[in-house]
Amino acid sequence: MSSIDRTTAGMFSDAEGGRLTVARGEVLFHEGDEAACAYIIETGLLEIARTMNGAQVILGAARPGEMVGEMALIDNSPRSATARALKDTTLLVVPREHFEFLLKDTNPVVRGLLERFVTIIRNVNDVNLRLTLGIR
Amino acid sequence: MSSIDRTTAGMFSDAEGGRLTVARGEVLFHEGDEAACAYIIETGLLEIARTMNGAQVILGAARPGEMVGEMALIDNSPRSATARALKDTTLLVVPREHFEFLLKDTNPVVRGLLERFVTIIRNVNDVNLRLTLGIR
Repeated sequence: MSSIDRTTAGMFSDAEGGRLTVARGEVLFHEGDEAACAYIIETGLLEIARTMNGAQVILGAARPGEMVGEMALIDNSPRSATARALKDTTLLVVPREHFEFLLKDTNPVVRGLLERFVTIIRNVNDVNLRLTLGIR
Repeated sequence: MSSIDRTTAGMFSDAEGGRLTVARGEVLFHEGDEAACAYIIETGLLEIARTMNGAQVILGAARPGEMVGEMALIDNSPRSATARALKDTTLLVVPREHFEFLLKDTNPVVRGLLERFVTIIRNVNDVNLRLTLGIR
């Protein structure tokens, strides 16, 4: 069952966006969650991982200055991976409407590229997961 | 040894860009080539593949309406894969300077996303290539 971002669940009511702290070991969002915002990491470290057939594959890490969770906003899909804090992590919340404002101002060709890159990333991550776990 | 795009090699002198036809079986660009332009596929079909230790791995296909070859323009790197026509293919050439004009008008946050997505795609493709070929 999918849940919804903790941000939308009421931890944040500030529509202008704000800051969020995730303690080491806690999950920022789960694979399959509906997405309501993206995040920019201020301090800390996140691990990005997916689960298939009960096995977990770590896709990568996200560091200060990097944005996470924006792919789901670009292609209007659920979270494709789980983000967990490996250290106490402070994040700047970018609400969907702010992100969409940014995209609305973007040339359609560039917007098309963003969407295609997200599709490619989801696909190559799928392949990676299957190859890593030996699933055909 | 890397070569340079056939477009820059003189097949096209039209600085405004133009059309290019690649016959079935012919290569549009090789992995390792310096990049001078991107392409939008009008008709036909391209196969995108990489080679490692003599073995070839097909990464995907590109179809009419899709852009190819733009990743090298975004991160100023050589071609990360070889594009070969699976059918007679007609392409619209997007010279580097046109593409850069497009990016110059793009919000820095969105431009940062494009660059990060290209890095992710290159990295995951590397990992997948190694996993497919059993190279550590």
